[in-house]
Amino acid sequence: MTKRKLVVIGGDAAGMSAASKVRRMQNEWEIVVFERGQYASYAACGMPYYIAGMVKSADQLIARKPEEFREKQNIDLRILHEVVEIDSDKKRVRVRNLKKESEFWESYDDLLIATGASPVRPEVAGIDSKGIFGLSSLQSGLDVFEYMRDHRLKNAVIVGGGYIGIEMAEALLERNLKVTMLDMAPEVMTTMDPDMGKLISKYMREIGVDLYLNEKLDHFEFKMGKVTGIVTDKRTLDANLVILGIGTRPNTSLALKAGIALGAKDAIRINKKMETSVANIWAAGDCAESFHLVSKQQVNIALGTVANKHGLIAGENISGGSGEFPGVVGTAITKIKDLEISRTGLNEKELKDLCIPYKTSTIISSTLPGYYPGAAEISVKLLIEKTSGRLLGGQIVGKHGAAKRIDTLATAITARMTARDFAFLDLSYAPPFSPVWDPLQIAARTFL
Amino acid sequence: MTKRKLVVIGGDAAGMSAASKVRRMQNEWEIVVFERGQYASYAACGMPYYIAGMVKSADQLIARKPEEFREKQNIDLRILHEVVEIDSDKKRVRVRNLKKESEFWESYDDLLIATGASPVRPEVAGIDSKGIFGLSSLQSGLDVFEYMRDHRLKNAVIVGGGYIGIEMAEALLERNLKVTMLDMAPEVMTTMDPDMGKLISKYMREIGVDLYLNEKLDHFEFKMGKVTGIVTDKRTLDANLVILGIGTRPNTSLALKAGIALGAKDAIRINKKMETSVANIWAAGDCAESFHLVSKQQVNIALGTVANKHGLIAGENISGGSGEFPGVVGTAITKIKDLEISRTGLNEKELKDLCIPYKTSTIISSTLPGYYPGAAEISVKLLIEKTSGRLLGGQIVGKHGAAKRIDTLATAITARMTARDFAFLDLSYAPPFSPVWDPLQIAARTFL
Repeated sequence: MTKRKLVVIGGDAAGMSAASKVRRMQNEWEIVVFERGQYASYAACGMPYYIAGMVKSADQLIARKPEEFREKQNIDLRILHEVVEIDSDKKRVRVRNLKKESEFWESYDDLLIATGASPVRPEVAGIDSKGIFGLSSLQSGLDVFEYMRDHRLKNAVIVGGGYIGIEMAEALLERNLKVTMLDMAPEVMTTMDPDMGKLISKYMREIGVDLYLNEKLDHFEFKMGKVTGIVTDKRTLDANLVILGIGTRPNTSLALKAGIALGAKDAIRINKKMETSVANIWAAGDCAESFHLVSKQQVNIALGTVANKHGLIAGENISGGSGEFPGVVGTAITKIKDLEISRTGLNEKELKDLCIPYKTSTIISSTLPGYYPGAAEISVKLLIEKTSGRLLGGQIVGKHGAAKRIDTLATAITARMTARDFAFLDLSYAPPFSPVWDPLQIAARTFL
Repeated sequence: MTKRKLVVIGGDAAGMSAASKVRRMQNEWEIVVFERGQYASYAACGMPYYIAGMVKSADQLIARKPEEFREKQNIDLRILHEVVEIDSDKKRVRVRNLKKESEFWESYDDLLIATGASPVRPEVAGIDSKGIFGLSSLQSGLDVFEYMRDHRLKNAVIVGGGYIGIEMAEALLERNLKVTMLDMAPEVMTTMDPDMGKLISKYMREIGVDLYLNEKLDHFEFKMGKVTGIVTDKRTLDANLVILGIGTRPNTSLALKAGIALGAKDAIRINKKMETSVANIWAAGDCAESFHLVSKQQVNIALGTVANKHGLIAGENISGGSGEFPGVVGTAITKIKDLEISRTGLNEKELKDLCIPYKTSTIISSTLPGYYPGAAEISVKLLIEKTSGRLLGGQIVGKHGAAKRIDTLATAITARMTARDFAFLDLSYAPPFSPVWDPLQIAARTFL
């Protein structure tokens, strides 16, 4: 293959994974990465723990510095450079140097769009007040940290009880703030079924989170440009710090303007090779679609694991290989204080929407044999296809050692195993690790 | 189906699982279980932790008392009753009441042999001295506990560095004994490859175990009938407590005498329905064979998880169902102090013996992102088939949170996944649980 030039838009997980993979496979190629922020290749998921004070320095969240990419991998990573236009006819991008406020055109042979996603900001009065933060880039985490340091804050309100919401609830409790959470749904964590979500809502109240469910944000109150309160459809709450945790939107306006087809949730439509609808333009990460192996539908999942895998496959194919991204099963995990939470596959609502007949089984068991010190409660819910017995999804809520077991189920769902296949898997057992029947297998066994 | 009578020989995991399953499916049947020991349905694997003093009462290790089986499930469980002969022509067993020293014949329609396995006792001088213990039944654990309580012991020697050996090393260190371990092999834990075993040997020395490798037991020294020393091919070691951890043998002399075919390791030959070579006689648990899904050979694996699953399948089929035990992949897990150890599939020696061409990859990673408190080292070794890339086995050695990840690999091996399939599995990620690429996936990725 002749010497080519790859341009990557976005220098985080997907973009840098792809760039690194191309470099490993094509030593001669020119690789340029434009990152509009100040940081590249960072652990965005670590921010709640940085804000909590558990991670001492933000530097620890940076996997690799721009210089390292340049020096060790010969990847020309330019921070504070924003791509503002894609010209696919002439195979070039228009780039704004944010520091110098100048612009230039950069040509490419292959272009990878890895622009990520941004937190949804509801269009309500007061949304632009200071003290209201979404959380996605490393910069946004630093902003929260600095705002907390520079102001004497007392009341934090978190809008949305999803992953970001509950991780930030833990972080802000750690920082001794009064934490209130607002969610439109009847329980927090709506990626779980309400019966499992209820366990989480209950625990959050136990650890001191003021939880307002079935309640809707109306607007924000502010004074001197800073947020002072949040008004819901039922009440007004004091708030001098607000965290928005109501989901993300893929950053795809650039792609849209260039005539690249969008798909699920307005993410960039891609095939298994990470090719977009336009020749020589690829997409990967939070801005792109993924194929869901259970629903058989295109979805958009903004998670670091998926972004890394997207990037690796894109890198293989850009370099001339033929990798395929097999898809996702919707696995996710989190914790709040001592409560661990995980899920994979489809939940009841998703199955109903897809008209897939299913059966469920929910059991309460123990992470370890009852006699072993540290044995903790674990609740497991499994969902199987009514006709075939095939595993469709599962949810775990429990204490130490509970949630990571979801990986076994994610693997089994990917392999299209039935509840019976799963119940008889040869999983590991010793008293410091598990009861003799793993809790997930106990749940599977109830279907036999 | 008409009312039938099931007789079960052996009242632990396999036997009681089967009896309970038959009772659930056949309310009218007569079910009699003969157990030669004093205890039934106990957690044998908990004994090292009882001996260590971590489990306060031996009662905690008993899952269910004989009365409970009788009263709640109408299962006639008779302890201290040993079956001494099987007469398959007349469909009856000869039973010795060990308390009354009397004998009687008991008829059956179906007979399940679940006689378990016993620790191997080498035939060397002094082996019958007091203070030398194998570890299998609950009784043997209680015997060790009492011997320690009644004697002022100082020097414990463990013969064999396998699962029982290293769990007992931890237990005896907890009890402040000087612990010496002897193994014929170059490293402990020979179900792992030597490069992984080496990590374990090193750690055991660090925590104060005197380890003699490549060294062979010759005989025992004793005084007044009690063990005082152990003589190897290289030296003599003081010992007033000896634990034998050199494997188990299936208890199948009864089956052999009855003309029932034996197979691997002289375990009872069974098909996937748990039927033996003789009509209406079934076998399950440590005394029976299992099919190994990777080697495609019959093996004998004496583990509680397998015994429970065998029992459940036997119970289904005895009741008139049609369950099949799919097989094992050789998964096992243990720990010593803070070092966790697990394995699944085949190791290098096993692959060489089977003439299967393979490739390996060994990586060192972290159980959590480096910045997250509690991140610990984990070493992962994967083995794949050279031609197909299919996963054949894996081994994990690491600190907190390392070893239980083996379940994901065991599931993937069962599903016949390749390293590529595995690398792109949608496993769970959040900083308190995992790095963004799971260490097992990092190992799999190196094959791409």
